Amino acid sequence: MRIIVDAMGGDNAPLAPVQGALQAVKEYGVEAVLVGRGEEILKAVHDQGLAELPQGLSITHANQVVDMHDNPATAFKEKKDSSLTVGLNLLKNGEGDAFVSAGSTGALLSGATLLVKRIRGIRRAAMAPVVPTGGGGSVLIDCGATAEGTPEFLLQFAFMGSYYAERVLGRPEPKVGLLNIGAEPSKGTGLQKEAYKLLHAASEEGRINFVGNVEAREAVEGAVDVIVADGYSGNIFLKTVEGTGLFMSRQMKKMFTRNWKSKLAALLVKDGIRDFKKLLDSNEVGGTALVGISKPVIKAHGSSNGYAIKNAIRQAVEFKRSGIIEDITENVEYMRLNARSAGTDGEEG
Amino acid sequence: MRIIVDAMGGDNAPLAPVQGALQAVKEYGVEAVLVGRGEEILKAVHDQGLAELPQGLSITHANQVVDMHDNPATAFKEKKDSSLTVGLNLLKNGEGDAFVSAGSTGALLSGATLLVKRIRGIRRAAMAPVVPTGGGGSVLIDCGATAEGTPEFLLQFAFMGSYYAERVLGRPEPKVGLLNIGAEPSKGTGLQKEAYKLLHAASEEGRINFVGNVEAREAVEGAVDVIVADGYSGNIFLKTVEGTGLFMSRQMKKMFTRNWKSKLAALLVKDGIRDFKKLLDSNEVGGTALVGISKPVIKAHGSSNGYAIKNAIRQAVEFKRSGIIEDITENVEYMRLNARSAGTDGEEG
Repeated sequence: MRIIVDAMGGDNAPLAPVQGALQAVKEYGVEAVLVGRGEEILKAVHDQGLAELPQGLSITHANQVVDMHDNPATAFKEKKDSSLTVGLNLLKNGEGDAFVSAGSTGALLSGATLLVKRIRGIRRAAMAPVVPTGGGGSVLIDCGATAEGTPEFLLQFAFMGSYYAERVLGRPEPKVGLLNIGAEPSKGTGLQKEAYKLLHAASEEGRINFVGNVEAREAVEGAVDVIVADGYSGNIFLKTVEGTGLFMSRQMKKMFTRNWKSKLAALLVKDGIRDFKKLLDSNEVGGTALVGISKPVIKAHGSSNGYAIKNAIRQAVEFKRSGIIEDITENVEYMRLNARSAGTDGEEG
Repeated sequence: MRIIVDAMGGDNAPLAPVQGALQAVKEYGVEAVLVGRGEEILKAVHDQGLAELPQGLSITHANQVVDMHDNPATAFKEKKDSSLTVGLNLLKNGEGDAFVSAGSTGALLSGATLLVKRIRGIRRAAMAPVVPTGGGGSVLIDCGATAEGTPEFLLQFAFMGSYYAERVLGRPEPKVGLLNIGAEPSKGTGLQKEAYKLLHAASEEGRINFVGNVEAREAVEGAVDVIVADGYSGNIFLKTVEGTGLFMSRQMKKMFTRNWKSKLAALLVKDGIRDFKKLLDSNEVGGTALVGISKPVIKAHGSSNGYAIKNAIRQAVEFKRSGIIEDITENVEYMRLNARSAGTDGEEG
């Protein structure tokens, strides 16, 4: 398998992508193509104490870099020689099996949608991170790829999230919940009420295992494997989990640095503190899959270090191997409100 | 001041309301009217070791209890002799200054809206809890009184939340933020984009201090004094903060109960652990104000103990004294999209 890595994306580029790719090649036996400014990439390789590119690693030169000043919606075409655009084109043309980038989320999403394209019949690609919950992690879909939701988007997210939980996380018959403010089908806004009906019907047909509405509090506890949300609500949920986690970590730090007794206590539980921090460390997760795109695209966190990039590459490998894209493609007719017109409006742009 | 207390509402009624009222009468020098089944209330008073009702405490008998089987929207009129309905009527008729209940949120909201009424010109009452954030707490408005939002609702929430933060929490020129998925005015769904414009205009006129969109993560850190949200999103935010807090508390407990070393550590930081738990304890907060109702109504947590009810009574006293209802009433014209028609559609039900 061959993973295309955006060597210029993220806060720590090109060092982190180079480190991550080197480690991934060694650990997973994959090939990696680093896309970006050749000389900068080579320098980073040399800085790792390597005289030349190791077996399995190659470079595809791209001179431009998409940065935060670029318009996310159009960056991929305005900067045709960027690592983002060149990398996505490699993916599109079959010169690699997956693309990993820690660069701009918006630019990656637009580029992936318009160059690599969505799976035919999928209305919107979704960002589907695995959120740390009491159940060992839950797929949250969507968390901000599309702010505005429709019942059909949520239906598609439910299917895609279910396949992801089953295929990539290995959960049999994953429990799918609709993020809502109460358990009853009458709860929420019009969007949730309509989506509830569609998800319930899909569950009755045996296509997904919809367990009903899930309140945010239960979602955090790990009550479901898949949390279905419109992009706006999903983002609020995700960022609140992250923010509260950080807030509480700081409170815990305060608790342990108060005086000599508390510092001694910190020494006594230092393994526990390490595990606690790990729970919240985005570097552990790797990245967020862009589900619904016709080929695997993984967004790594902007602040990724080499370890995080390596994990994102592992995730790309798992995603590719899982067969989730084939699953979605084969079942897309069940995710459409008006399946008959699927042939005519599959690419609404 | 005289506070009307629903003696039959909540999981621990009538004990918790009785304990809370007893403590509040003693500590704050207020009068309290306990509404509910007289004999049960008297028994709870006796169980506290008191032979008779102490000075300042009285009972108004009401035979029925609104419970979870009642339809929240109609319970107040179907059970006319319930502690909820009798209590709200006392408030309406000026026989008390505020009403505190740990009973059904939905029934309280419907009853307060239809019996006590909203302030003229206010479209929807909002639930406005003070959420524990890095800044010492922020007012979240709304968190679920009305799931579906409109830009005008959010404008009114912004004003009311700002008055609450200033008058009740004592924050001068409170920073008002719109809960959103990015900082730019173009972020979010149509609702947030439209609301942004209204809030910005109100800020330009010097009526509120709108600092722009606030992401969930920054909101948790305490970046703003007032977090403005539609009821659906606000509820997701609140429940996620609560859920993540509980999840992390459990992780911390695990950390401290691993082995003898970790148990020793727990002893060394036991004050710190107590403060940590307090951060998340809903009993500390007291309750949630129903802002926009023409008289003070406080919803205490369903699981309130006596201490929590006492805190909710304190909050009712502060709310009444703050003059926030007068503030809203005097400025309601600035919170209307079409102020000219305020006379005709003030009570849309």
